[in-house]
Amino acid sequence: MQTIDLNSDLGESFGAYTIGNDAAVLKYISSANIACGFHAGDPNVMVETVKTAAELGVGIGAHPGFPDLAGFGRRNMNLSPKEIYHMVVYQVGAIQGAAKACGTHVQHVKPHGALYNMASKDAAMAEAIAEAVHAVDPELVLFGLAGSELVRAGEKMGLRVAQEVFADRTYQPDGALTPRTQSNAMIHDVTVAVNRVVRMIQEEKVTAVDGTDIAIQADTICVHGDEPEALRFVQQLRERLRTENITIKNFGANHHE
Amino acid sequence: MQTIDLNSDLGESFGAYTIGNDAAVLKYISSANIACGFHAGDPNVMVETVKTAAELGVGIGAHPGFPDLAGFGRRNMNLSPKEIYHMVVYQVGAIQGAAKACGTHVQHVKPHGALYNMASKDAAMAEAIAEAVHAVDPELVLFGLAGSELVRAGEKMGLRVAQEVFADRTYQPDGALTPRTQSNAMIHDVTVAVNRVVRMIQEEKVTAVDGTDIAIQADTICVHGDEPEALRFVQQLRERLRTENITIKNFGANHHE
Amino acid sequence: MQTIDLNSDLGESFGAYTIGNDAAVLKYISSANIACGFHAGDPNVMVETVKTAAELGVGIGAHPGFPDLAGFGRRNMNLSPKEIYHMVVYQVGAIQGAAKACGTHVQHVKPHGALYNMASKDAAMAEAIAEAVHAVDPELVLFGLAGSELVRAGEKMGLRVAQEVFADRTYQPDGALTPRTQSNAMIHDVTVAVNRVVRMIQEEKVTAVDGTDIAIQADTICVHGDEPEALRFVQQLRERLRTENITIKNFGANHHE
Amino acid sequence: MQTIDLNSDLGESFGAYTIGNDAAVLKYISSANIACGFHAGDPNVMVETVKTAAELGVGIGAHPGFPDLAGFGRRNMNLSPKEIYHMVVYQVGAIQGAAKACGTHVQHVKPHGALYNMASKDAAMAEAIAEAVHAVDPELVLFGLAGSELVRAGEKMGLRVAQEVFADRTYQPDGALTPRTQSNAMIHDVTVAVNRVVRMIQEEKVTAVDGTDIAIQADTICVHGDEPEALRFVQQLRERLRTENITIKNFGANHHE
Repeated sequence: MQTIDLNSDLGESFGAYTIGNDAAVLKYISSANIACGFHAGDPNVMVETVKTAAELGVGIGAHPGFPDLAGFGRRNMNLSPKEIYHMVVYQVGAIQGAAKACGTHVQHVKPHGALYNMASKDAAMAEAIAEAVHAVDPELVLFGLAGSELVRAGEKMGLRVAQEVFADRTYQPDGALTPRTQSNAMIHDVTVAVNRVVRMIQEEKVTAVDGTDIAIQADTICVHGDEPEALRFVQQLRERLRTENITIKNFGANHHE
Repeated sequence: MQTIDLNSDLGESFGAYTIGNDAAVLKYISSANIACGFHAGDPNVMVETVKTAAELGVGIGAHPGFPDLAGFGRRNMNLSPKEIYHMVVYQVGAIQGAAKACGTHVQHVKPHGALYNMASKDAAMAEAIAEAVHAVDPELVLFGLAGSELVRAGEKMGLRVAQEVFADRTYQPDGALTPRTQSNAMIHDVTVAVNRVVRMIQEEKVTAVDGTDIAIQADTICVHGDEPEALRFVQQLRERLRTENITIKNFGANHHE
Repeated sequence: MQTIDLNSDLGESFGAYTIGNDAAVLKYISSANIACGFHAGDPNVMVETVKTAAELGVGIGAHPGFPDLAGFGRRNMNLSPKEIYHMVVYQVGAIQGAAKACGTHVQHVKPHGALYNMASKDAAMAEAIAEAVHAVDPELVLFGLAGSELVRAGEKMGLRVAQEVFADRTYQPDGALTPRTQSNAMIHDVTVAVNRVVRMIQEEKVTAVDGTDIAIQADTICVHGDEPEALRFVQQLRERLRTENITIKNFGANHHE
Repeated sequence: MQTIDLNSDLGESFGAYTIGNDAAVLKYISSANIACGFHAGDPNVMVETVKTAAELGVGIGAHPGFPDLAGFGRRNMNLSPKEIYHMVVYQVGAIQGAAKACGTHVQHVKPHGALYNMASKDAAMAEAIAEAVHAVDPELVLFGLAGSELVRAGEKMGLRVAQEVFADRTYQPDGALTPRTQSNAMIHDVTVAVNRVVRMIQEEKVTAVDGTDIAIQADTICVHGDEPEALRFVQQLRERLRTENITIKNFGANHHE
């Protein structure tokens, strides 16, 4: 039986500020990446989001980011590997506290935004993240861009790793995501996107922007719930996965349970 | 054999900013209250301080505070009990992450500054703190002002509690600390201060500002290391404790080890 | 000819976080209180909001608040008058920079949230705010709760002052707003609210919760635009003011232009 | 008569955290670059520093930096030119508010740390800064690394520009500072440093690390006061300038007074 994990970034509201549509998207996913208060989220939002995810049986993940609330963690910052290490230890610890207070536990860690993107290509950053995750809890699963330095660093550290693919993004021949600054970065046709995802799962292949097929491993798919269109995509994807007999399954759960 | 715990607030440096004299004071104390990044401290400082304390056999404690770096957590803030609860869960979790990364564990929690003072008198705040500590780890020891609402809330929650006394402060007839705004709030004579501490330990009594003796339980004494005079006080206190056959002992350790 | 000013709090979005409906409400008001980056707002939002307000001929005001983004400036904080003074100087200066960059100027200052409420009753805080406003620019108009300490402090300092009234709130016999914690704090009936406002303008009276009439001076009315209902209220109020021959006029403009 | 300006970064303390030795260095310099609360400084520190500098006749400058207190503004951040523009407008405005409250005015703007370094080489960033400075007050003098993109951007914008040189740093053949990561970046011999500065002023030349002489314009010299050695250097430099008949003169003052 083939399985796939659906993950989404959640808990990104802050104080009086609401962002995203957590209640809606939580019904469709198997793994929640919950903001840890640096790029988004706050202690109130974090605990409430952990609680809701746990009640719905969605796997709880830490979603650490750069200390840049004003930039939502999307702006590259030049931190040393040591600073990255400490920052990830801190954020993962904080959400573990929230999980314990809710009678549950953290299963995975997925870096956010610029931290995720930089660590995909920068081995030193990737290793700092993997070391931090391992240091706090070696049972944690590390989510990283399929084929990236982050995946390599996690494996090197002995962590269980989930290779993440994107349904709405195109790929370069080397497996990198096409930068959003390029016109062909996004896939807007939902049927095309769903077809690509299914092929990634079943054939472990995706067509790159130059028309060549590249190998790709799809353990988890990133989906969004902040816009009506995004929710419709998730629903359509789930329906298709069902007809293909691909089971949606929390990737992080295997180890712990 | 009589024992006493000596605690101090540490890890309060932030980024390029250094405060305190952690290396010096760590040699003399048995419990370290380590800032958790809200009123002071940052992930780098926190991990380094946990590591150093662990190496020296000093008990590691969380020192959560208000989210007020600009005010060093010393300014009263009007947060709801729910906000207090979440904020303490978050901060204790963060330092537990740091402790795990250093191969050690957190033993106690002592609220900082305005949070500590407000929770001494406000039962709802005190209970929110005690619930948060219990929710993250019921084995944690809660440090609170001797005889305060915080101590009561901890006991009510079933936590092990350390009653904290102050060597350099005077007491009101009701057991409250004399506010710093009053001229007789501080005790500047080191010999007087040491004598009072020894009496609190041996006789469980202290003379209040009105000349009456009040009952007080001294489990842990707060000492400082940020000024040469403060360090000299700690040294003199330790010497006196030795001659009185009072052993300095990490209060939080009893349970875990 | 009778005139009244309609003011609203704007520019409270932050980074990726959007709050309020600034574009809609700007069409109906004469004075904009623009957040200055402490309780809400950021440099991008501030400059853009100043620019839009200036284009629409809406008077630009500073809306300084406590340094508490997580609490949206709504939580009481215990700052010294000196800290309040410096904090207001800083925030008013920042938005003056934004105004100069947009080729316009700041006309008024209205403290936000907990700062506004505390300064309504605390003379020392009120005077610190009034001194700060005067120190940066004595031509600035200070907006404060009608009959409050803030109004008194502004007048004492020689500032021009706008007495602010609330259409959707009830008043105590002493002129204070009924705290939101009480069940009769809010007025939900739009027609009642509009009638009360018109009477405050025309008769300088309002009926307090005990049924007595109290004297009140209404220079500016606080309106909101964050919900459809709020916008409908503003539209209805404007229509009524038109039929009563009360002209909506930017209060801060008189002096400068 | 030859003149030179001596500038130093000041007002970088924050809340309970003290950094630098402002009182000592203010006696020796002609221009103070005062932190604006993003990378360092707070409203209290800013106003007090402006006041002290004004009393000593030292020219007051804004020292805007990245919003990165944890990194003291020394970590590169990837902000858009628009974000840079708004951020500089905000910070310059804030210190102008402080200056007005102290009865003085801001004369110059010198970007801090990573913002300064990045803008030395990145024309788009440099232009965003120069536009922001010009937009707030076209009379402001822009301080930038001698020969850098920042200087070019300031001149292009029509601003008066001060070319800044460093006494304790070596230069590359293209006029760039040798990165601190290289072993020959710093000049530790005070006499050598003083000689180099005097030659930069008198001959407009400096010897680069490859032994060649390069042209350099020295309008202002950056000095430090945070360590005893740094203060001794400033004193020795001042003594030498006196014997060379080079007058220390506030560069920003010329225009305004």
